[in-house]
Amino acid sequence: MNKTTKNMKEICIRILNERGVTLDHIVDIVYGLQKKYVPDLTKEVCLDAILRVLGKREVQNAILTGIELDKLAEENKLSEPLQTLINNDSPLYGIDEILVLSICNVYGSIGLTNFGYVDKTKPGIIGELDKMGKQTNTCHTFMDDIIGAIAAAAASSVAHNAEE
Amino acid sequence: MNKTTKNMKEICIRILNERGVTLDHIVDIVYGLQKKYVPDLTKEVCLDAILRVLGKREVQNAILTGIELDKLAEENKLSEPLQTLINNDSPLYGIDEILVLSICNVYGSIGLTNFGYVDKTKPGIIGELDKMGKQTNTCHTFMDDIIGAIAAAAASSVAHNAEE
Amino acid sequence: MNKTTKNMKEICIRILNERGVTLDHIVDIVYGLQKKYVPDLTKEVCLDAILRVLGKREVQNAILTGIELDKLAEENKLSEPLQTLINNDSPLYGIDEILVLSICNVYGSIGLTNFGYVDKTKPGIIGELDKMGKQTNTCHTFMDDIIGAIAAAAASSVAHNAEE
Amino acid sequence: MNKTTKNMKEICIRILNERGVTLDHIVDIVYGLQKKYVPDLTKEVCLDAILRVLGKREVQNAILTGIELDKLAEENKLSEPLQTLINNDSPLYGIDEILVLSICNVYGSIGLTNFGYVDKTKPGIIGELDKMGKQTNTCHTFMDDIIGAIAAAAASSVAHNAEE
Repeated sequence: MNKTTKNMKEICIRILNERGVTLDHIVDIVYGLQKKYVPDLTKEVCLDAILRVLGKREVQNAILTGIELDKLAEENKLSEPLQTLINNDSPLYGIDEILVLSICNVYGSIGLTNFGYVDKTKPGIIGELDKMGKQTNTCHTFMDDIIGAIAAAAASSVAHNAEE
Repeated sequence: MNKTTKNMKEICIRILNERGVTLDHIVDIVYGLQKKYVPDLTKEVCLDAILRVLGKREVQNAILTGIELDKLAEENKLSEPLQTLINNDSPLYGIDEILVLSICNVYGSIGLTNFGYVDKTKPGIIGELDKMGKQTNTCHTFMDDIIGAIAAAAASSVAHNAEE
Repeated sequence: MNKTTKNMKEICIRILNERGVTLDHIVDIVYGLQKKYVPDLTKEVCLDAILRVLGKREVQNAILTGIELDKLAEENKLSEPLQTLINNDSPLYGIDEILVLSICNVYGSIGLTNFGYVDKTKPGIIGELDKMGKQTNTCHTFMDDIIGAIAAAAASSVAHNAEE
Repeated sequence: MNKTTKNMKEICIRILNERGVTLDHIVDIVYGLQKKYVPDLTKEVCLDAILRVLGKREVQNAILTGIELDKLAEENKLSEPLQTLINNDSPLYGIDEILVLSICNVYGSIGLTNFGYVDKTKPGIIGELDKMGKQTNTCHTFMDDIIGAIAAAAASSVAHNAEE
């Protein structure tokens, strides 16, 4: 990781925090996904994996782009019909899932399966983000997928390391 | 659908049957995935969606290729180390998930989420295929992902039509 | 195509026009890509394929999202560091290529190959958009990839139909 | 890289050699792709990048699987209609492009663009593989895409490192 991407990693962690998500929230999801496959899994191992994922440039760019669109939708600053599509988190919008593909895939194709699973079951903070997005003025159309994808990629990294 | 792809569709349905999966098995998975989103969903609608998915060339080619690899592994006809990788259904092999991406995506990115979910939860025939692959000489490394992907793509098609 | 997607198709064509691209510009690229494979290819066939591509919801959503980001960057309305990343069209940003994957893939995996090719060779309007984006205040970070992806998907559709 | 993946890397290099491709062949393609962007590029840097790509498990699995299918097609050992589809390298088969996606993407989405470009322009050994596959009994349906994808991923790795 060079200086730019290290710096960007800190920026991303700060932005996630500002949107209500801590690294501990993500640790809980990764731990929940992998503990049945890796009996001696610790939360430290999960955190390390998350930090590796957040050190990747494509992950950082996806985070910055997705959260920006959520914030612009919240502030009603997008043109129609995009404003309504993002603000309503229409299940057929689909760009949120596409954007986070670049996150899911950083540790290979198991990331995809884990992502699909958390996207449907919405464990922990993901469910809260989803509920908040639907009930309040907050827009989390991209945010819930971003967190799910970071957790899914970190879970893949844990799985790869455990097997080796 | 032209004559070749129509003919290929019938070949694919026959090959799926020979490997122990009927269209009704897949209907059950699609119905299970979508009934909570589409209150008046019928099994006929699910079957129509599955037949649309099976009419697509990229789906047909993925089915033919994946099942051929399963059968060759079963007959011990692959070179090492591939023979062992496929026969053991190693979670880090990953080519099974990649191959079926071309199926999941035929009706857009929601297919991906549905696929990840069924790949983890293994409803109906998918769980049976997985168990059979692990306990007997049968190899279903690709087959369970293929069925999951067909069901996921069909569920997406149902979702798109329901919203319209 | 239902009423919403038909209406959205017209909105997308209008937005592409406002950003300097006509359907004829895209026809020229598709024709250039496919004429050596399909000897009796006409520009009408290319236009029909483009209109089929533009009728797909995932294509429409990618167009709306990408062009919105270009316009916001142009108006200096994005937060840093995203503003600089998009405005400079950094080759390592990568989200532009990810976003348009959902366009390339609508007619199968040959779309991907065609997209990679036009993204590198920048025929016709794509080269002009790229040059304009680099030399003026205009931002075409997403726009050139969007046009390349529409042309690539339409070329795949032409190829599929020609073979059948 | 652990012992298994290091060992697998050597197996993959040997298999590529047996199918007529040396690391130098791939170096030439990577060098050709990147020299105009990285003025002081050396062939050593290209070779290092290729070896990094070949050390990744998903790359190794894609190589093993694709080349096995080519060899089985050559020996007429696949069932119909798959035997004919692979042996004829039908442009609408598409599974070759899907399989190598897992290679292209290991260093982010620029890999995809480079892959599309070499797949169309067929520089160096890729053109020779393609010609050989069409004129002789040899089947290189997967092989040319595999080499293109390795070169494309290595070129992306060079680009990332150059910028940092």
